[in-house]
Amino acid sequence: MARRTESGVTIRAVAQRAGVSAMTVSNVLNRAGRVSAATEATVQAAIAELGYVPNLAARRLAKSRATTVGLLYSNRRTPFLDAVLVGALRATNAHGLQLILRDGDGVSRREAEGLAQDLVRSGADALLLIPPFAEQLDGSDSLRALGVPLAAIATGTAMDEITTVRIDNRTAMQGITRDVVAKGHRRIAYVAGPAHYSVVAARLEGFRAALEDAGVPEDLELIYQTGEFDYDTGRQAARVLLSRSDPPTAIICSSDDLAAGVVAEAIDRGLQLPGDLSVTGFDDTILASRLSPALTVVSQPVEEMAFRAARCLIAALDGNGFIASDQILDHAIVRRASVARPAKST
Amino acid sequence: MARRTESGVTIRAVAQRAGVSAMTVSNVLNRAGRVSAATEATVQAAIAELGYVPNLAARRLAKSRATTVGLLYSNRRTPFLDAVLVGALRATNAHGLQLILRDGDGVSRREAEGLAQDLVRSGADALLLIPPFAEQLDGSDSLRALGVPLAAIATGTAMDEITTVRIDNRTAMQGITRDVVAKGHRRIAYVAGPAHYSVVAARLEGFRAALEDAGVPEDLELIYQTGEFDYDTGRQAARVLLSRSDPPTAIICSSDDLAAGVVAEAIDRGLQLPGDLSVTGFDDTILASRLSPALTVVSQPVEEMAFRAARCLIAALDGNGFIASDQILDHAIVRRASVARPAKST
Repeated sequence: MARRTESGVTIRAVAQRAGVSAMTVSNVLNRAGRVSAATEATVQAAIAELGYVPNLAARRLAKSRATTVGLLYSNRRTPFLDAVLVGALRATNAHGLQLILRDGDGVSRREAEGLAQDLVRSGADALLLIPPFAEQLDGSDSLRALGVPLAAIATGTAMDEITTVRIDNRTAMQGITRDVVAKGHRRIAYVAGPAHYSVVAARLEGFRAALEDAGVPEDLELIYQTGEFDYDTGRQAARVLLSRSDPPTAIICSSDDLAAGVVAEAIDRGLQLPGDLSVTGFDDTILASRLSPALTVVSQPVEEMAFRAARCLIAALDGNGFIASDQILDHAIVRRASVARPAKST
Repeated sequence: MARRTESGVTIRAVAQRAGVSAMTVSNVLNRAGRVSAATEATVQAAIAELGYVPNLAARRLAKSRATTVGLLYSNRRTPFLDAVLVGALRATNAHGLQLILRDGDGVSRREAEGLAQDLVRSGADALLLIPPFAEQLDGSDSLRALGVPLAAIATGTAMDEITTVRIDNRTAMQGITRDVVAKGHRRIAYVAGPAHYSVVAARLEGFRAALEDAGVPEDLELIYQTGEFDYDTGRQAARVLLSRSDPPTAIICSSDDLAAGVVAEAIDRGLQLPGDLSVTGFDDTILASRLSPALTVVSQPVEEMAFRAARCLIAALDGNGFIASDQILDHAIVRRASVARPAKST
């Protein structure tokens, strides 16, 4: 396990800084409950100052609790969080492991590092990451200091030190864009999502490739690249794109929630969908089948991704060692009512 | 703990039926891994035939694994499953417990009993139930034989042997109906959901009370009482209700997913919402804020319910004993764009 390097800080150094014995530090780490609140605070402060992370083997020997997978996610409103949790729990349930959660906004690498360290200090023996945490932690020095195997789902690329389970985002977006082009659209806008998610670049490449294949010239003004993956960003993007003197006849979105915002804004402007405007989503969450019109989307097998990623972590913890791997699962294009021939020629 | 009665079947009886020693049965129960697959199958068959359920204290003494809460839910498409899982995991994480899942359709009491027994055999020391499992298990003999504490969220009533954490569904539905009446609606339809969920009767009472308070005569033909809580049922209900010669000007729905189906059907029929038809939902899932028009709904604190229900179970497992209790949390009415004054007088 080449990447299980240690932070270099020893339990003895923590004990010295805190002015206590190494056994006391060990009791704090293992929550043995024999340490006063004041002493625990002193020890925790020393741990934080020195950046100490206990080594995995030592921690597993010392503790009596169950082996634990930590799940780091960015937002309770992630539309596919239910599938992630069910998939991860299926894997951990099957092996008698615990799953522990940590929720954060994921705005900066520093915050991501802090959350990951917090999960490991809370007892996580391995970490499962939801974007954009994988992107923020890959290649970070503090990732190596964590000393635990990591896996991520739904990324846009493979990573050096993190196992990834994902779909081929480029091919998926190329496929759905080709569908829209095949209906006769030529003015096609694109709502990309936030650039610090690795899927964003991969999907944009796929969109461009489909236009190029069809000989449709790219119009950079129809590519909306700011904001989040969410409804409010979708609304804002539609506001900008549909206010143009030459508005698009189709808007391709990099998430279902973006597409929901685009649909809402278009309806508020009195457009008839899909006649006046075709819209596509990405993910196939519950939103896709419930909106009117129901969305044509790329579907990704999120529960299966989470299950497989958790299984990779469990195999590493079972002593099989950890080498970052990359699995690409099949996606599907689900065709519903939101894509039609353009009503007006452009 | 009066309700922790045992099934009366002993480990010795199981051993005798299987033709093995009591120690072998114990090894199977504790997954000690020293038993051949053939022997394990024989023992499991004997356990199933005799309906043996190991007693909680004995199981905890014998095993070395973590204490476990089992979650029984009806359907992966439950729109608030993410909130249930996050709430339950918050509680189990805080106490170092495991959460294990079992998914079933929940169509019959017999199936519910089988799933609950399966969870307990898999190691669950307590069960957390999502409707309609609580309704199906309360008062069942097999529930007593399980010998574990049970809690349920989002029920319509308190229960004799199951702790319940819920909102006041009657008052909530009365409140949202009062809002619709106050906008000037008099022909108000109601989509109730399936009768084997205890919330259905409580909510219908609230709807009727609001009409009565306002002096609006009840029209039984405007109450749609078949089907599920889902989108397809909402569509079917709207098809029936909007085909009438005197259609309603508002449709009140007992779930967001029902409301999504009603909205989709109304739009397909060329109605303008909310001018031609007001619609309300119940739950405040992601659908409520994403549909066009966004739904006025009753919001229930699902994550907090799951957290509290899991905490009650943990307290019982910590040796505080188990007596079924009933907690009622606050609901809220979230007013969005889907309710307006009726366009035509009726």
